[in-house]
Amino acid sequence: MTGGDAAAEICARIDALAAITEDPPRLTRLFLSDEHKRANDLVSAWLIEAGMSARVDAIGNVVGRIEGARPGLPALVLGSHLDTVRDAGRYDGMLGVVTAIACARELRRDGARLPFALEVIGFAEEEGVRFGTGMLGSRAMSGTFDPALLERSDERGVTMKDAMRRFGLDPEAVPAAARNRGDILAYAELHIEQGPVLEAKNLPVGCVTSISGASRFEVELTGRAGHAGTVPMGERRDALAAAAECVLAVERRCAAEAGLVGTVGRIAALPGAINVIPGIVRFSIDVRAPDDAQRQRAAADIERVIASIAAARRIGLAMRKVHELAAAPCAPWLMAQIERAIAAEGIAPFRLASGAGHDAMTMASIADVGMIFVRCAGGISHNPAESILPEDAAIGARVLRRLILDFARAEAETMR
Amino acid sequence: MTGGDAAAEICARIDALAAITEDPPRLTRLFLSDEHKRANDLVSAWLIEAGMSARVDAIGNVVGRIEGARPGLPALVLGSHLDTVRDAGRYDGMLGVVTAIACARELRRDGARLPFALEVIGFAEEEGVRFGTGMLGSRAMSGTFDPALLERSDERGVTMKDAMRRFGLDPEAVPAAARNRGDILAYAELHIEQGPVLEAKNLPVGCVTSISGASRFEVELTGRAGHAGTVPMGERRDALAAAAECVLAVERRCAAEAGLVGTVGRIAALPGAINVIPGIVRFSIDVRAPDDAQRQRAAADIERVIASIAAARRIGLAMRKVHELAAAPCAPWLMAQIERAIAAEGIAPFRLASGAGHDAMTMASIADVGMIFVRCAGGISHNPAESILPEDAAIGARVLRRLILDFARAEAETMR
Repeated sequence: MTGGDAAAEICARIDALAAITEDPPRLTRLFLSDEHKRANDLVSAWLIEAGMSARVDAIGNVVGRIEGARPGLPALVLGSHLDTVRDAGRYDGMLGVVTAIACARELRRDGARLPFALEVIGFAEEEGVRFGTGMLGSRAMSGTFDPALLERSDERGVTMKDAMRRFGLDPEAVPAAARNRGDILAYAELHIEQGPVLEAKNLPVGCVTSISGASRFEVELTGRAGHAGTVPMGERRDALAAAAECVLAVERRCAAEAGLVGTVGRIAALPGAINVIPGIVRFSIDVRAPDDAQRQRAAADIERVIASIAAARRIGLAMRKVHELAAAPCAPWLMAQIERAIAAEGIAPFRLASGAGHDAMTMASIADVGMIFVRCAGGISHNPAESILPEDAAIGARVLRRLILDFARAEAETMR
Repeated sequence: MTGGDAAAEICARIDALAAITEDPPRLTRLFLSDEHKRANDLVSAWLIEAGMSARVDAIGNVVGRIEGARPGLPALVLGSHLDTVRDAGRYDGMLGVVTAIACARELRRDGARLPFALEVIGFAEEEGVRFGTGMLGSRAMSGTFDPALLERSDERGVTMKDAMRRFGLDPEAVPAAARNRGDILAYAELHIEQGPVLEAKNLPVGCVTSISGASRFEVELTGRAGHAGTVPMGERRDALAAAAECVLAVERRCAAEAGLVGTVGRIAALPGAINVIPGIVRFSIDVRAPDDAQRQRAAADIERVIASIAAARRIGLAMRKVHELAAAPCAPWLMAQIERAIAAEGIAPFRLASGAGHDAMTMASIADVGMIFVRCAGGISHNPAESILPEDAAIGARVLRRLILDFARAEAETMR
């Protein structure tokens, strides 16, 4: 497989998947939709063409498999997700699935005989757009799916349970999607970076060290609304001025340590008139770090600083944690193997954390995981402008292929 | 008139006006509405009962007049407005009209013979809710009404011109409402403070020095949206963090000088998701000061600081001034007279600027103006919770009555 051929095929297949959308010309493909089914059908056809078996599991994941030297061996599992956010980019998720299929097909064409099974998964629901919670495909596969989620409704009032039935799945059977730790050698996911780091380093690919954990807060500050003309500055309890201090405190604290990031993405000031001092301000905080202790220290510092800002300004404070997710470190031995594969392509191995969540995060509960990031133009993701260079797609495919072959060598040595 | 009687009557009349509303139990009375007509009718009845003539002028102001020693003498004009914001307080505007009528009635009852005419105006439209622009009654009376405003539409698409016709007014005749400078001795307005200053000073009334001028800006900051997890802090161009610095810069600059106030009342961050770095933030700035040069210096400093914040953060900046209104200073001789009237009530005269706009601001173009402020509970205004103490209403009435009698004495001396 030459670089140009591989790139062309990967990009053509990504374009074909991007055409399966509920609102063309935008790309939106939600969990358990008709478009989900059509994407699964297309991916299944590619899996079969690559010489693999293909099935849809109990949660709606597409599972391709080719047996190793003998049937039933533990599998090296590759994959990523097939669902999208609304008005999505086309590489997020799909790039990993399409690249894995390309590698599987090429290995078969080259007559490679692997001492383990190889699987390619197209996960059903990573983004969490339809029911407000993500990683459902990988949760089901890792046995961490909470059956209470089946009662959740989408914005049209359709429960997940009913949506599964309409899709042709049995909601009672979700546990059947779970896999055993012993059946999986490792889980490796190739994914677009969704950030600007590799581009800034002028590198086509990188090796992920950890998928950051996250703490999210909703903050409400209550000051006193008042006439913008009549209340002297010294007598104000301006909720927005207090919030401004908080926004800068989040920024300052998170900029103080590498790896740590903190964002105030949402803010609302009430009553919200040009001539009224804001009485109530609500905002969100999202803090992430590859290291849980680092994140927890930062979150605790931010809580303390916000409390002291509010107290100093005589502002009422309600702050609650709405989300907390632990970091998922990648397995050091897999990182080493990914770095060897990258170096073998003549590229300087570079390690970076993933600030975004991925199915690998969930799969980490039943398997050692590793991730390869592919450079993202301008760091832009979750946006139709998301893009990669075709040559980077080819490099990603070559690195993933080397990783599989390294596995084969390592397994073969183990068996000797 | 004992304090208790005066307070009871003033409060009862304010309650009666507050019952004339388009959305009970809330108080909303807009320009040229049926409620405007009913309020004018009620005020006209009170004027006649006080021995004055009553008419509605070409813009819809109620004008009460009692001649002085001989017909046609220049008038001491008292007044305030009868329109309200939506879900308004009941004292804003009405207190000044009702108090002026109470004073006129009492002077007549006491057989006072004034060496000038006395007028009481219930202005038609000060707040500007219906057509988005205020002070229409006082603009018409001062000859500064722009006829182009007649083409403006309200939110239902009714033009001011048509609304005037339905009300029984001839839009062509608005210039007839204008008065000549020589016909007005002075304009004096009693008004609820709408701010917390008198309450903080423990004073029932105060003497206004100036009605602050205002500069308003709309600011748009353009950074780069990005994934809250994947973009390192050092690579961000976070429009909200930049806006937070701007909010604090406005606060800091305006807190540095007495009289000056600055407010960011409105803010919007886009795209506005918990996990996305804001790419665009828009906010408003309102700067006011009793002194125009002070306000202009502050506004220029704020523009400079915002430009430097944006530049330092590599954030695009679009900032435009959307409104500028000069301050209207009160006439020193009228301030002195108001202070004498306050002191005569045994109250320490206290001077304060008005951060809110008032009809006096517009009347200043054809007359020397003075204002008496009455203490406002908690500084709360433009809100159903707006309130005053009944005893403060009585004190306000006594001060206004003294002011009228002082005028009479001064005029009598002049004539001697």
